[in-house]
Amino acid sequence: MARRASPGRHDAVADALHSAAIHLLRAVRAADTDTGLGPARLSALSVLVFAGPQRLTRLAAMEQVRPPTMTKVVAGLEGAGLARKRPDPDDARAVRIEATARGRALLLEGRQRRVARLAGGLAHLAPSDLDVLAHAAAVMERVAGRL
Amino acid sequence: MARRASPGRHDAVADALHSAAIHLLRAVRAADTDTGLGPARLSALSVLVFAGPQRLTRLAAMEQVRPPTMTKVVAGLEGAGLARKRPDPDDARAVRIEATARGRALLLEGRQRRVARLAGGLAHLAPSDLDVLAHAAAVMERVAGRL
Repeated sequence: MARRASPGRHDAVADALHSAAIHLLRAVRAADTDTGLGPARLSALSVLVFAGPQRLTRLAAMEQVRPPTMTKVVAGLEGAGLARKRPDPDDARAVRIEATARGRALLLEGRQRRVARLAGGLAHLAPSDLDVLAHAAAVMERVAGRL
Repeated sequence: MARRASPGRHDAVADALHSAAIHLLRAVRAADTDTGLGPARLSALSVLVFAGPQRLTRLAAMEQVRPPTMTKVVAGLEGAGLARKRPDPDDARAVRIEATARGRALLLEGRQRRVARLAGGLAHLAPSDLDVLAHAAAVMERVAGRL
């Protein structure tokens, strides 16, 4: 007979995992200050690099901010040479925002610094704890993909 | 003899865990739209609720934004009745920003919605995967506390 989770177990694990993910990302994002970009610009640039060029309204929706707020964020990225506007291939009257090569490089370097910082934090773990984290990461991706 | 992690293993696990934490939090934050607050205000309010009242410069540093940016974020929270300024008990000339009861309630309700959403995503997991996530959350907290 398959073992079943006790009542409330999902809530307890969700609560612990939610907090742990926030605390972990807060701790590694200290490495972001080297990019010279605030969190709003970094997050929007991350979407452009990993999800590709976006219209402004779509980018605002993905970042859960209002379009006027995203207009300012994008202006900041454009001013820093990290993003640019290009005609939308699907609609000649519209534009899409895309990361520049420099934006992409800065974002990837920043990501590398975060991961290196996190890897340093894992250095003292027992191999069995590393295994648990590796397994958990795969489960978390599966859960995130289904939410 | 204690087993040792293979070279590069920490980097690989750090990379996978960093991505998984981002994807998981991005997926659950869809529940945040119900709060009516953008990510910058929500994040600052979260600091005020969980870390307590802060001076503006400190809050800006914690959120990794410039003080003028935080001034606008705080003005938005104050305008919505979610935060307020109070004299700093340590320095009569200075003020600290604190969450109001309404801000605290809104933040905690939002957190509850995120956790409920995540718990729903865990509902189909095998109990052994739930155990892995529970163990991983504890390890992640330990790592975050040391970074």
